[in-house]
Amino acid sequence: MTIRVMHVGLGPIGVGVLKQVMARPGFEVTAAVDIDPEKAGQDVGEILDVDQKTGITVQGGLEAALAGHDADVVALCTGSTLPGIKSQLEAILGAGLPIVSTTEELSFPHFSNEALAGEIDKMARDAGVAVVGTGVNPGFAMDTLPIVLSAACETVDSVTVDRIQDASVRRLPFQKKIGAGLEPNDFRQKADRLEIRHVGLAESIAMIAAAFGWKLDRITDVIEPKIADEPVASNLISVDKGQVAGLIQDGVGFRDGEPIIRLHMEAYLGAPESYDAVRIEGSPTLYSKIEGGIPGDIATASVTVNTLPRALAAPPGLHTMRDLPIPSWWAGD
Amino acid sequence: MTIRVMHVGLGPIGVGVLKQVMARPGFEVTAAVDIDPEKAGQDVGEILDVDQKTGITVQGGLEAALAGHDADVVALCTGSTLPGIKSQLEAILGAGLPIVSTTEELSFPHFSNEALAGEIDKMARDAGVAVVGTGVNPGFAMDTLPIVLSAACETVDSVTVDRIQDASVRRLPFQKKIGAGLEPNDFRQKADRLEIRHVGLAESIAMIAAAFGWKLDRITDVIEPKIADEPVASNLISVDKGQVAGLIQDGVGFRDGEPIIRLHMEAYLGAPESYDAVRIEGSPTLYSKIEGGIPGDIATASVTVNTLPRALAAPPGLHTMRDLPIPSWWAGD
Repeated sequence: MTIRVMHVGLGPIGVGVLKQVMARPGFEVTAAVDIDPEKAGQDVGEILDVDQKTGITVQGGLEAALAGHDADVVALCTGSTLPGIKSQLEAILGAGLPIVSTTEELSFPHFSNEALAGEIDKMARDAGVAVVGTGVNPGFAMDTLPIVLSAACETVDSVTVDRIQDASVRRLPFQKKIGAGLEPNDFRQKADRLEIRHVGLAESIAMIAAAFGWKLDRITDVIEPKIADEPVASNLISVDKGQVAGLIQDGVGFRDGEPIIRLHMEAYLGAPESYDAVRIEGSPTLYSKIEGGIPGDIATASVTVNTLPRALAAPPGLHTMRDLPIPSWWAGD
Repeated sequence: MTIRVMHVGLGPIGVGVLKQVMARPGFEVTAAVDIDPEKAGQDVGEILDVDQKTGITVQGGLEAALAGHDADVVALCTGSTLPGIKSQLEAILGAGLPIVSTTEELSFPHFSNEALAGEIDKMARDAGVAVVGTGVNPGFAMDTLPIVLSAACETVDSVTVDRIQDASVRRLPFQKKIGAGLEPNDFRQKADRLEIRHVGLAESIAMIAAAFGWKLDRITDVIEPKIADEPVASNLISVDKGQVAGLIQDGVGFRDGEPIIRLHMEAYLGAPESYDAVRIEGSPTLYSKIEGGIPGDIATASVTVNTLPRALAAPPGLHTMRDLPIPSWWAGD
């Protein structure tokens, strides 16, 4: 079996997904779409900066691409918010294609927009196909993993997840996205305008709470700059002492006024140790740590590609990682 | 919703499951069955050694218990092998009840007996209910967890799982099961007679291979005694230097002659550190470690109880942890 994939959105994440689908057995690129006029019309090989024509030309229009498609599934990597992708979901589901998307708010859309989640679910059922939002975070490191670990517990009192990343090794758009190199005031203004933020902590918290059957009072999501206390640099950005090296973001879910789910992210240039850690307080208390952390760029693409077979096998409707069979790498044979 | 559970088999694992079902919101004990004449006729409270009558009397006969049942699901904790539980599966499925079982070979029955797995699947479909084998190991620590972790990878070259346990803190039957206190020759004879062994490494290896789409040439499963190089004792057993402190067991899955899945267990009195570690070699390479390890006694019962809602929600047929939605603790509300 080879899964034929139409790629919609060729930003950094979309390109990461495209590269894996090209390289991995069991998957095949059949079409690629991006509205950027600089990309439309190019061969996919040129987009990937590989010395090889693929014969697949990037199309500028989604409707035209869908009209003549021979895909099994769409990898949708265009935006972070539900309203931003709604018309794309409509068009793709209208063409009867299942969707795996890296849209962060789609990872648990019941949180940000229950009504729209219901609409998407109905559209997917009407189309007879599945829709899933996923990625490494949200979708895996701070929700799926702690949920799975909790299965070993008879009681759970609280969940804490730390995702600490040295951003020096990440791509430039990521380093900019976390505010590296900004003055603290600029950081705060950009954060207020939602230009600097990780989208998905609230979705992950809501997914954990739903899995456990916890009813939360509220979810908070607070971003602070990580100020460099000495000069620090990646090979792309230099940060002076007192400037912003990156971000610290805390999502907290409260039940009966108590913080019961705490998701803590740090992503900054010069973080001394990258790791992902889950602590479940309960019986038993479990502490799991992934040394070096889960590398975000590869893993977002991996989780997305590894979810493609799940979307094809799932019953029609809107799904999340919470209700799909356990995720897995797949050799493609 | 309260899930009403009939408990079949009240050995140490069955009693652990029973205790959790009694204690946890969302679950209720409705019946208990054990063929041991010393248990049949007793109140469940006496079995648990709690100072409280439950009003539920342990029944000696499964057929009689099934005849008048008001249960939603059966927790079956009687044996380790498929042939040993076949008649019990038939009786329970004949009564139309779904089953979650700690029978190790049922965790991935396609390995030890594909024909019998097919029969069980057919019986379950005919009965319109689900059957699942699970537990902490097999079912979680050495199969579900590494499979889930692999979802962050674009390539996987090999998987190694280490489960290292200081057996001093485990119950006496476990300490005996691993051979603590035996002379090395006695250990080897008992291992040859299959009286000392952990059942499930081959099932876990087969489950990982099936998830990845790897075709294995063969699976090996080798048990060695861990010889005490100095005297060691739990509060239950004393081991002299030169005697057996516990077991070391290695399961290996080979593909094209190469060891590609390695599951390594050590369980002995005086192990300096208990932990569960997963190493996935690939892109990215991931190393995840649970400090202190997943405590086996609680966690086997937890995974089993946490799987009860999954079995009720699953379509009819034989399932494994590989094809059920991600496992999770559940608050029971």
